[in-house]
Amino acid sequence: MHSTPATVKKIVIIGGGFAGLSVAKGLRRLHADITLIDQSNHHLFQPLLYQVATASLSPADIAAPLRHILSDCSHINVIMAEVVSIDKVLSHVVTKKGLVFPFDYLVVATGSRHSYFGKNHWESLAPGLKTLQDALTIREKILLAFEQAETASNPDLQRRLLTFVVVGGGPTGVEMAGAIAEIAKQTIKDDFKHIKPASTRILLIESSGAVLNRYPPSLREAAQKSLEALGVEVLLNKMVTDMRKGAVQLNHEWVEAHTIIWAAGNTAPSFLTTLDVPLEKSGQVIVQADLSLVDYPHICVIGDCAKALDRSNNPLPATSPVAIQQGQYVAKIIRGEPWKKGRPLFRYFDKGSMATIGRGQAVASILSFQFTGFFAWILWSLTHIFFLINFRAKVLVMLNWAWSYLRAYRGVRLIVHNTNDNDIVFDD
Amino acid sequence: MHSTPATVKKIVIIGGGFAGLSVAKGLRRLHADITLIDQSNHHLFQPLLYQVATASLSPADIAAPLRHILSDCSHINVIMAEVVSIDKVLSHVVTKKGLVFPFDYLVVATGSRHSYFGKNHWESLAPGLKTLQDALTIREKILLAFEQAETASNPDLQRRLLTFVVVGGGPTGVEMAGAIAEIAKQTIKDDFKHIKPASTRILLIESSGAVLNRYPPSLREAAQKSLEALGVEVLLNKMVTDMRKGAVQLNHEWVEAHTIIWAAGNTAPSFLTTLDVPLEKSGQVIVQADLSLVDYPHICVIGDCAKALDRSNNPLPATSPVAIQQGQYVAKIIRGEPWKKGRPLFRYFDKGSMATIGRGQAVASILSFQFTGFFAWILWSLTHIFFLINFRAKVLVMLNWAWSYLRAYRGVRLIVHNTNDNDIVFDD
Repeated sequence: MHSTPATVKKIVIIGGGFAGLSVAKGLRRLHADITLIDQSNHHLFQPLLYQVATASLSPADIAAPLRHILSDCSHINVIMAEVVSIDKVLSHVVTKKGLVFPFDYLVVATGSRHSYFGKNHWESLAPGLKTLQDALTIREKILLAFEQAETASNPDLQRRLLTFVVVGGGPTGVEMAGAIAEIAKQTIKDDFKHIKPASTRILLIESSGAVLNRYPPSLREAAQKSLEALGVEVLLNKMVTDMRKGAVQLNHEWVEAHTIIWAAGNTAPSFLTTLDVPLEKSGQVIVQADLSLVDYPHICVIGDCAKALDRSNNPLPATSPVAIQQGQYVAKIIRGEPWKKGRPLFRYFDKGSMATIGRGQAVASILSFQFTGFFAWILWSLTHIFFLINFRAKVLVMLNWAWSYLRAYRGVRLIVHNTNDNDIVFDD
Repeated sequence: MHSTPATVKKIVIIGGGFAGLSVAKGLRRLHADITLIDQSNHHLFQPLLYQVATASLSPADIAAPLRHILSDCSHINVIMAEVVSIDKVLSHVVTKKGLVFPFDYLVVATGSRHSYFGKNHWESLAPGLKTLQDALTIREKILLAFEQAETASNPDLQRRLLTFVVVGGGPTGVEMAGAIAEIAKQTIKDDFKHIKPASTRILLIESSGAVLNRYPPSLREAAQKSLEALGVEVLLNKMVTDMRKGAVQLNHEWVEAHTIIWAAGNTAPSFLTTLDVPLEKSGQVIVQADLSLVDYPHICVIGDCAKALDRSNNPLPATSPVAIQQGQYVAKIIRGEPWKKGRPLFRYFDKGSMATIGRGQAVASILSFQFTGFFAWILWSLTHIFFLINFRAKVLVMLNWAWSYLRAYRGVRLIVHNTNDNDIVFDD
């Protein structure tokens, strides 16, 4: 496109998540000059991130250095940097510190952050769960709440410290709420002298009429029942209308809660506006059926930062299977050339969805079959272990799980940040 | 002492390290009201902390929640708080947020921090290694240096980024320098395209005439040879005379180095001055032969924050075996009462010392035997695994090690902090 066929093509991939890594892997054997740019140095197995946030797994169990994953590909450069703009006319990408990467082909796969629907100041009050740093922040917030409750002399403060609100009833919210319930009611139930962790309140807030509302109705109900069996209060048709430190307003009614976790909505990075193409309200790039931009067939946008439609014109969900299949598709297109003529359209093959609710409980919809309970949990476990990229992670995660399951113990209950401010809080 | 024998005695332990935990365990079956106060929520297996700092182990592999360790002792309260003063006359301890804990017996086992010999501003330039947070900070600094070197266009900057200085040739310094050399020359040697990690310079600075200068001479020499075989430059009789961002002055000669790690000297927490007793220059409390304070037989100070002497009037080293034996001794004293008459004196039984220098290399002095090389490393490994408090940690650490040894892979090479500032640095 921008160089003669005889020269080596420059391919830039922004993002080392499922989508970006899937492209890179698909180009392992291509004779090209490939650069993968990511803000962090690792690929993250995001579906298990809630297990880091809830002290079952260590960061290293679900993440692997991008350099290591791609170390056998001498033609793929890994660059740890933050992209701030894309110039589609000059065909280059610019990083925060001013590095410029020209491209013949560009794949944008940045992923997304949580959306606070315009109330960005809520982020510090109710952290979301997208990165390892997020997970460690949430883990420490949860663990510190119990520590602080133990020494709180005031019963009102103690009650507030032992109230956890999870906003958003999608898979992340359901899994977080289930895991917090397990921590309080099983893992640490004998560890404290002055509080009863079992009296912890866990509220799961969903604005629609059901949790997991993209799943088949029977699974939604099964998930809700499992959550309620664990002691989670599932509040449907509730919107967060306001928030302040230590309290959240639901349909204009205040609920006191020390820990609020945000698992609702997605927004794509703001630098995507530099592409100068139509974006969704949530910042996602609206792509064509071949995942490229109008008039720019050599620029594709995939994964959670893209708005693509399925054959029935419904938007594709922001899940890892979609990201992986889109990455494979784009790699095939790049390998196959020519870009312009006869390019096949992207088709998502939906194998199903799963979500887990505590130890030994899950819901799964696979092709046209639906499963609940322990068997679904086994399916869920095997699928997730199978997909874990790194064999080492596979073995250790499996052992960690087996061990946790046997002992109902969460080994990763560590508060590692600066402890200067961790003294008991009387009035927060 | 401060209450009649019929009432339940209040025992306060400050610190949940080897010393404090050893006291708590020794009092497992005592009918008493025991409070263990620590700034963090976990016990840390400090001898393996350098492996977290060098990306071999995860924090959870070498740490366990104090509450969990003591959860079967209903008479032991664990409080996460920072002690700010001790009133030995009123017999109580005060925390930062104003909680007051009265005691009949007090055991002070706070541990120590690194000492910068009055140059406290060096701490931000050359972090030390005492807590999990320290280890994660150092790990990210090391990993980021390679990432930044990969994109540095200026060869001077690249050279500075690939120069690591470890200050202090004790066990921590030796183990850190050996591990950094292994990372650069083995683990990541094929992961970068623009730099040769193998060309990394690692300088180990020691102010005396030998590394490991508390070890027998033959082991000092073996350790130095092993380090040099790994490519570490061992600089003896060198003092750090000044420091600035990106450079350290050794005997008044500047050396450019992006990463400086401090492993020299110890200082006890400043609140120990509130005990109003003679302190060492380093802040350690000078204790009697029974580890108590003059006129206060019910207050003992043990572990790294105490200055105790052995039978030849040499100071006991700041090591975990000393801390554990002191803790056991104090627990026995408390269990045995009466405190005042016929108390036996503390005697340290020195089983030996060990230090490891990379995979498969160590030095060990056990009773009067000395070992070097692979056999010493096996001894070192077994001893450390044996002492790991938590069985789960034992199994996983063993597997992690076996795996690392087979693959020379460091799985924990993760940079998890906020990545906003992690873009490539052109001029730091």
